[in-house]
Amino acid sequence: MAEIGPNTRLRVSPFYNATVQDGVTAFSPYNAMLMPVSYGNPDAEYDRLLNGVSQWDVSVERQVEITGPDAARLVQLLSVRDLSTIEVGKGKYIPMCDHRGVLINDPVVLKHGSHTFWLSIGDNNILMWARAIAAERGLNVAICEPDVSPMAVQGPKAEEVVAAVFGDWVRALRYFWFAPAEISGIPVIVQRSGYSKQGGFEIYLRDGSRGTELWNIVKEAGQPWGIGPGNPNPIERIESGLLSYGGDTDDQTTPFEVRLGKYVDLDLDDDVIGITALRRIKAEGVRRQQLGIVFDTSERHPGHAIWYDIEKDGQKIGHMTCGAWSPRAQAMIGFALVGAEHRVGEAVDVKRGGYRDKARLCALPFF
Amino acid sequence: MAEIGPNTRLRVSPFYNATVQDGVTAFSPYNAMLMPVSYGNPDAEYDRLLNGVSQWDVSVERQVEITGPDAARLVQLLSVRDLSTIEVGKGKYIPMCDHRGVLINDPVVLKHGSHTFWLSIGDNNILMWARAIAAERGLNVAICEPDVSPMAVQGPKAEEVVAAVFGDWVRALRYFWFAPAEISGIPVIVQRSGYSKQGGFEIYLRDGSRGTELWNIVKEAGQPWGIGPGNPNPIERIESGLLSYGGDTDDQTTPFEVRLGKYVDLDLDDDVIGITALRRIKAEGVRRQQLGIVFDTSERHPGHAIWYDIEKDGQKIGHMTCGAWSPRAQAMIGFALVGAEHRVGEAVDVKRGGYRDKARLCALPFF
Repeated sequence: MAEIGPNTRLRVSPFYNATVQDGVTAFSPYNAMLMPVSYGNPDAEYDRLLNGVSQWDVSVERQVEITGPDAARLVQLLSVRDLSTIEVGKGKYIPMCDHRGVLINDPVVLKHGSHTFWLSIGDNNILMWARAIAAERGLNVAICEPDVSPMAVQGPKAEEVVAAVFGDWVRALRYFWFAPAEISGIPVIVQRSGYSKQGGFEIYLRDGSRGTELWNIVKEAGQPWGIGPGNPNPIERIESGLLSYGGDTDDQTTPFEVRLGKYVDLDLDDDVIGITALRRIKAEGVRRQQLGIVFDTSERHPGHAIWYDIEKDGQKIGHMTCGAWSPRAQAMIGFALVGAEHRVGEAVDVKRGGYRDKARLCALPFF
Repeated sequence: MAEIGPNTRLRVSPFYNATVQDGVTAFSPYNAMLMPVSYGNPDAEYDRLLNGVSQWDVSVERQVEITGPDAARLVQLLSVRDLSTIEVGKGKYIPMCDHRGVLINDPVVLKHGSHTFWLSIGDNNILMWARAIAAERGLNVAICEPDVSPMAVQGPKAEEVVAAVFGDWVRALRYFWFAPAEISGIPVIVQRSGYSKQGGFEIYLRDGSRGTELWNIVKEAGQPWGIGPGNPNPIERIESGLLSYGGDTDDQTTPFEVRLGKYVDLDLDDDVIGITALRRIKAEGVRRQQLGIVFDTSERHPGHAIWYDIEKDGQKIGHMTCGAWSPRAQAMIGFALVGAEHRVGEAVDVKRGGYRDKARLCALPFF
């Protein structure tokens, strides 16, 4: 392991000082910022997420704000999911594709008003992408990255903590619904959402100068429920079958290949970016699919998979795109991106450095 | 400092194992890869670059390959510098702008043939950008990231080392000229170029499976001249006045503001991206400029500037975008991005965390 710290190419999160104080031990870059990825106690961090409540700096989920008379039009052009019925105060998970139908992001879109939207993005320069399309199509919009930094509160006790901070009204928010709020004069948006299956909220900080304050308010309020620091959890997200754009995808991956076909509306207008390509791909047949993979051995391996080759009968059939030792499965598990002809239950080999592990394809999610 | 290592979001350089073997101690992410930024001995690394020869893993300089009947047309649309006279086997440094005239990259374009170009890019998703423009304009091109990874050999003895490996013909290459070559069956492109003012070459490895071999061939050949590992040097590049796109620029920076006006050809066709905006900006008057800044004290500060505020008479006039202690200046120096009305020689204050340092604006480059 080598060192990393803030530099001019890595913007500092408003929660950075708070996470350092809480003992962050490792970062990964994401949208040109440092995302905390460990606090040095993986077992406790996993346990808090599954059984208690965990507090995450996910300010790397940057917002692309689109405003103006053509905002709704542009957002639909960027999304292969139909957004005609989205309501103010609600969000939707959308696949975004390039003109080839290849996935370039999977944000949550938040509708703040008929002419105001946020894309809460994964790791890619969608600000530049949205500006390119808007300018090329001559749309009347303004596009910026506002001063907004999400913090996630995740786990079965998350609702108790967020209600303790903001009031019982948050309990009525359904998934991806959101509302503006204020705590100690700090402006935020509270949304039921987050990158885990354990339930929870994302609190979008709207004043980057007050990150430590907000962090400490939530931390303090969470004490009765044993809150502690965490991050998008590499074990839980695999167990739960959550896609990691840029981790589980490559420069050829379509939504159909990674279980996002249900969010693709092929009868959208032709000018929606990627739609005509996706229609053709669907007609010609999707070549790859995302399945689970579980190792035969219950031995615990260190580290996560970096696109290990998967072989069957000595032939390469795809990649293992992520992996972790699952406490619930008591085995190494991960995602497999393999040819569409393969089936759940098939025995395969995973080539991991000098090793060859026996494994089996399975359905997703694991839990 | 916290830890970082390869993960699924950080592709591994073909030279990764070689750099680990040579003692790399710190990385910075760049184009979704890990770039070595220290081998733990900054004084020796600086000295090698200025007085000997240094070997760099700069595979993060990814290539965007554009081929096809409309390739030359697309490359010109992406570049605000006139490329009508570029010849096969030569390169040019080009500012790339978005439709607002804001800098989004400053690659070197390499012309391999009338229908084949590479953009050797800085840190941004130019692959996606080029594809967006090509698709929106209906151009007949193919765009990909080929298996190409540059290694730099920099310093006054670089020519000796590169000639020892490839032959004396490399001495005839003028700046940005390049030619294909082979060593031990490893296919490469050799170009006179590199991110330093000390002279040198970039060797574009064209087979990612042979990085360690190529690294060791150059390392071995360089022994008589005391070659050692290094990286784009934060001190030398500031002393030499070299721009760092993404480090010294923000979401508003035009080429005029950062001394790239000489590479902007305002009489290019209107459909070149950014040209009409740049004409308007030029006519209305450029608001900011990039100057040098030197601290009054000769005290050596740790670390590099992260967009420190610059004040004059208590008013904020801009930012210090980078900084380092210069052995040649025997002072802290850096770049200042300040209002166009300020002049070389003006006394200013730099707000650095809790400190306030007295400094003076000066001309670039320093050396």
